[in-house]
Amino acid sequence: MSTNAHPIPTLADVLRARERIRDALTLTPLTFSQTLSEITGARVYLKFENLQFTGSFKGRGARNRLLDVTPGRGVIAMSAGNHAQGVAHHAALLGLASTIVMPANTPFTKVARTRALGATVELAGRDVMESAVRARELAQERGLEFIHPFDDPVVVAGQGTLGLEMLEQRPSLDTLVASVGGGGLLSGIALAASGHTHPVRVLGVQSERYPFMADHLHGRASSAVAGSTVADGIAVTQPGVIGRTVLAEQGVDVLVVKEATIERAIAMLLEIEKTVVEGAGAAPLAACLEHPEVFAGREVALVLSGGNIDPRTLAVVTLRGLANQGRLNRVRVELDDIPGRLALVATIIAEAGANVVQVDHDGLGSKGARSTVLDLRIDTLDAAHARQVIDRLHAAGIRADLLPW
Amino acid sequence: MSTNAHPIPTLADVLRARERIRDALTLTPLTFSQTLSEITGARVYLKFENLQFTGSFKGRGARNRLLDVTPGRGVIAMSAGNHAQGVAHHAALLGLASTIVMPANTPFTKVARTRALGATVELAGRDVMESAVRARELAQERGLEFIHPFDDPVVVAGQGTLGLEMLEQRPSLDTLVASVGGGGLLSGIALAASGHTHPVRVLGVQSERYPFMADHLHGRASSAVAGSTVADGIAVTQPGVIGRTVLAEQGVDVLVVKEATIERAIAMLLEIEKTVVEGAGAAPLAACLEHPEVFAGREVALVLSGGNIDPRTLAVVTLRGLANQGRLNRVRVELDDIPGRLALVATIIAEAGANVVQVDHDGLGSKGARSTVLDLRIDTLDAAHARQVIDRLHAAGIRADLLPW
Repeated sequence: MSTNAHPIPTLADVLRARERIRDALTLTPLTFSQTLSEITGARVYLKFENLQFTGSFKGRGARNRLLDVTPGRGVIAMSAGNHAQGVAHHAALLGLASTIVMPANTPFTKVARTRALGATVELAGRDVMESAVRARELAQERGLEFIHPFDDPVVVAGQGTLGLEMLEQRPSLDTLVASVGGGGLLSGIALAASGHTHPVRVLGVQSERYPFMADHLHGRASSAVAGSTVADGIAVTQPGVIGRTVLAEQGVDVLVVKEATIERAIAMLLEIEKTVVEGAGAAPLAACLEHPEVFAGREVALVLSGGNIDPRTLAVVTLRGLANQGRLNRVRVELDDIPGRLALVATIIAEAGANVVQVDHDGLGSKGARSTVLDLRIDTLDAAHARQVIDRLHAAGIRADLLPW
Repeated sequence: MSTNAHPIPTLADVLRARERIRDALTLTPLTFSQTLSEITGARVYLKFENLQFTGSFKGRGARNRLLDVTPGRGVIAMSAGNHAQGVAHHAALLGLASTIVMPANTPFTKVARTRALGATVELAGRDVMESAVRARELAQERGLEFIHPFDDPVVVAGQGTLGLEMLEQRPSLDTLVASVGGGGLLSGIALAASGHTHPVRVLGVQSERYPFMADHLHGRASSAVAGSTVADGIAVTQPGVIGRTVLAEQGVDVLVVKEATIERAIAMLLEIEKTVVEGAGAAPLAACLEHPEVFAGREVALVLSGGNIDPRTLAVVTLRGLANQGRLNRVRVELDDIPGRLALVATIIAEAGANVVQVDHDGLGSKGARSTVLDLRIDTLDAAHARQVIDRLHAAGIRADLLPW
């Protein structure tokens, strides 16, 4: 089912792309994770595509596409993130001038990094849709070649090289999992897997806030609200024509996961695997955590597709992860205005084996003239341990409660 | 210069250790970092020893030492962290019962992880010195074999395999840099490097708060105060006899770096290399940042010795890193009590291209009946951009200041 505007790429295109781009991209590690295998019940392999030079897989498709651009011609792309860096970096390597249009509210890190890679960045539009309109206008005005992030057969063929690479690194894999926004990466992987020596299941993953490819493939109307997501790399409301076509033809299913599970997966990859993964890159692990029955006993590669997460977001996700595990707690203590009460509270908490990491004394939260409110943040082993601390305070006649975050 | 209590290991011991332990440890990647090379002026290779199963190099020495233990005999070690996990994991693999004594205030993550690896954990003592005393007592009482974290020739020989491995992976390296506490790792690496085909410079790194090996080698009295450090893995006040002896014999120098530089190195490894490194593991990069003249033009391997950093510490270091780069700012605004002033402030900040991420309104900070104080946290591109935001507020007649963190 091809259209003129979007000819559908084939396995042969992916194989050709692999030869065209292999020298300019990193062969990222695919390694077994004993701990994640124990946790999920699958044999889990991680594909560290977050270790590509630009921090994501996007350079694969970008380079494959840029190799078709006439030398001397400028290129333009619209992207709030990884596609921008992929195009900017490989354009610079190939001696092509690049312009990247980004929404006005793009995180500063990404703007700065894209500029450092050699691109001219234009901030335009309130979201990627408006930026895309502006990018198309500029392409016309300035005679620049537009590089679409996913709905381009040459880009999709380039992304598909990731699938070939994983199956070369470990031919016995039977399941490949990647997140999906526009569908470029996932459809490329599906094409790559279609030529393998044995059947390989390919699965996509989307956030509950952007389940549009899953909805399309299941033929259901979407009730999702879009909005903010930690997986901004796959926050696409209109999946591509190529992606929709290839995934349907190849029988690829897409799982939907909760935002909270994606955050948990980011924190686990940080703490267990010592690796920094953005939301879209953590979504495959989130799928294993949320749908373990799908993966049980299988030999699964999870594509850690990118590592370009805003440091502040990473810090917030980490702290929220500790809170969710009951390791970081908010405790409110009502303190009678009697000398030595604060010392007593501190002693009880210390004797219970917990650490006080922050103290807020809120004079305005007073319950009356003779008592004040003390808000503490305490480190504990887990939620049960936090409960023990509260029980000990109660046993000493002190009013204390765990607060929600 | 050997003593009976501490016979000094040799290169031959390190070579033998390599054959003994190679099957049970991960061959961790050694990879070139283009970005860190550009930043530091050296050719920087990173040794990802934080990707060992227990999250640090400590399993090398532990396994080598445990192979000498009579089957069926129990072992005991004192450690607040990585040595504990190394001993626990390899003891379990070798079928030996292990007991680990940790200071009472050890972070919960480390206690839980050490237990999960199969060890019996005993919390005893206010610091590692007190824990060590208790561990020696228990070893006597229960007939357990004590595994010292660094002052044991078989442990040092095991750690030295890291040096052999780096020089096998890239024989043209001319400088190896690792952090140093007791001196086990660094002296092992120095022995390994002593047999290389060409001279290799070995350098140690310590925090300004624990510069005791550097002070010893330079023959100076130490004025350091110890205390809290982000590099807790090398917070050793009494370097080992073996370490002191080997480093002096091999002519190894030790550089001292600031705590703030170690924090900066952790944040850079997270953001640029997408890898989680604890303070001791980031110290070698800190040395390149603080002493660039030592490394300029050289082919340098930085040992990322471990990744076991408390997630809350990691979050705090990340946020502080953003603050130090001027990307996260505290702004205090004095707000006249006139309708619409808050909206005006918010509009000016937005138009300046900055994001407000937190608002604290402090009623008690009031400057008088007709004005209140507003504390904001804003994201900016850098410090100059933050200054522009303040200038725009001033231009609109609003009293505003950047606050220190």
